[in-house]
This record gives sequence, structure tokens and C-alpha cells, in this order.
Amino acid sequence: MTEKKSLKMDKTDSIVLNPIGIVKNSIKSPALIADEDGLRQNSDKKAVQKGFHETEEEISEIILNEEFEELLEGIEEYSHIMVLFWGHGISEEGRNLKKVHPMGSKDIPLTGLFCTCSPARPNPVLMTVTRLCGREKNILKVSGFDGINNSPVLDIKPYVGEYYPQKDISIPGWMQKIADEHYSK
Amino acid sequence: MTEKKSLKMDKTDSIVLNPIGIVKNSIKSPALIADEDGLRQNSDKKAVQKGFHETEEEISEIILNEEFEELLEGIEEYSHIMVLFWGHGISEEGRNLKKVHPMGSKDIPLTGLFCTCSPARPNPVLMTVTRLCGREKNILKVSGFDGINNSPVLDIKPYVGEYYPQKDISIPGWMQKIADEHYSK
Repeated sequence: MTEKKSLKMDKTDSIVLNPIGIVKNSIKSPALIADEDGLRQNSDKKAVQKGFHETEEEISEIILNEEFEELLEGIEEYSHIMVLFWGHGISEEGRNLKKVHPMGSKDIPLTGLFCTCSPARPNPVLMTVTRLCGREKNILKVSGFDGINNSPVLDIKPYVGEYYPQKDISIPGWMQKIADEHYSK
Repeated sequence: MTEKKSLKMDKTDSIVLNPIGIVKNSIKSPALIADEDGLRQNSDKKAVQKGFHETEEEISEIILNEEFEELLEGIEEYSHIMVLFWGHGISEEGRNLKKVHPMGSKDIPLTGLFCTCSPARPNPVLMTVTRLCGREKNILKVSGFDGINNSPVLDIKPYVGEYYPQKDISIPGWMQKIADEHYSK
């Protein structure tokens, strides 16, 4: 392996983000919990349900710091937006996981973490496409947001369907099963 | 406005990311440049072309730090992945922009930054869905990646088409025009 191929980033290259706001909703506890034993479903079944099923109907408020209100001007022309947020409940152990059972389900073999949607990951920058229901100044109301209450918000991006391919897509069978069970609308 | 509605994040809440790898490709200069005057197209026309048209064919290498190789196990089952990367060329002025002419085009009125795909934004966490062409240990080969050479990589996520809605989507007319011109395949 040549030097070029094993480029090691230096710790001094750390990147600092400042949250632009915060999420408020009724999801108090995450559906999936990560610790040194890996990924598992929350024993609070209500939290699992909210995380995987009910959030489509749940309205979340994305409260941006007031200084960012101007950056939202025109957002109402979009039906959907992409919200980037920080997995603030993820522990150091969660950020160091290498393989997990997807969805915390022991029925699915241990899988490389980057092949999964695990919220626990080296840099837990999470994202979700949400329907935009309205805006009041610096506050967006969205449905379908699956992060928990008090998640720090990192970015708002417009959602443009054309940029997300739908043809000639292949995914593993276990992921197709998850998509069919939890996200069919 | 109640206290709840104007929640101000504290600077001490800063979030630290450590890059997991780096991108290598032939895109040496970004298509769009941000400075205190706003967003404009690169005067290097080749860079603009590469950024907007030719990258579909361009093969980029995503070189992860070797410690993350295990996290990629199983990734070959996906035809597409989502790459999160850091806009490392973005200046402080770029991170403070409030409104821009989308695509640096003066023909489109100044628009709130969160309504645009400007790479310059408060937290320049950029992302793109790319076709996965192959993996060799800790190195992914992808096509359709539109970031520049040496971009620090923050996360690799599986791309699952079902999670990205295609029905009942609305976007502004100017964005539709950009999508039609630059991203039709």
C-alpha cells in the first residue's frame, strides 16, 4: 500500500460545528440505543414505535437561532426539506462501534456500521427528509422527522427529488425488509 | 416570543468531528466560489464544467483511514451510497452568507441560503449520492461525486431509494430550471 493510499488524517484536523438551532418534539427517548454491547432497541416500546412508525404524523418544531431567520426566506416554496442534526445522545462507545446488528435485531447478522442507518456512528451527523408544514419566522414545522427532542440542528437543505436516484438501485435483502416493514407509506 | 421559542445555543455547545478519510479526484477547484461579495461561478470554466456536468463520469476515490475498513464490510451490496464530506475550502465569509444568487447566477434573485444548495453555509457539511463502483479494502471507488479533491470525509451512509420521496414534491421554478439544466441524466 503506497503512502497515498493510507493517508491518515491528523487529530489537529478536527472540524468544529456550531448548532444553528434545536428540535422540539414529543420523542423523548431514541428507538435505538448504542453502548459497548452494540446496538439494541429501546426497552421502552413506545419510543420504538415513535421512532419507526408514528413520526410520519408527528409534528416537530425546528427552532433556529433568530440570526438565521433571513436564511430561511423562500423556504415555503419547498414541500420537503432535508434536516441535518446531531445525534447528541450518542455515547463515545457508540461512536466507536465497528459492526452492529441493523435495527438492533439479532436476526440480522453483524454488519459493517457504514452499511447501516445506525444513529451511532463515528460522526453522528444524522439526517432526514421531512415534509415542511409551515414556517413562522425562525421556526419550521415539519412532519416525518425521526430525531429526538432537543437534537441540535446543523443544517437545512432544500429537497430536490431529481438529485436522489430511483432507478437501478440495489440494496441488501435485509435492508429491503426493514424498508418494507418500517417505512412503507 | 416566549423563552422556549428563542432558544439560543451556547458557543460551548460546539460539536467536534474527526474526518474518517479523504477524497481523491481530479476536481482541483470548486465550481462555485463564496466570498464577502456572495456566491459566484469560478472563472475557470473547466472547474464549472467539472462541478456541474462531467462528474457523473469522473471516478473519485474515497480513502478511509485504515481503522474504518471493517465498518465497510457489506457495502458492495449497495449500488449507491451517500457521502458526507466537509467543504474545506469554504472561508469564514462563506459561512456567514445570509442570501445568495443560486448557482452564482445574477439572473436568479437573492435567496435565503437554506433554500439553496450553496456549498458555503453556516456548517458546510456537504453530501452527495454517488454510484459505488467498487471497494478495495479501505478505498471506495465512486462516480458522480461532486466535491473537490482532498475533501475530508465525515460519514458514509447506505442509500435506500424508498427513504427519499418522489411523489407530491414541490420546488421553486428557479430550482427546477437548475435541476433540468445541470442534473438531467
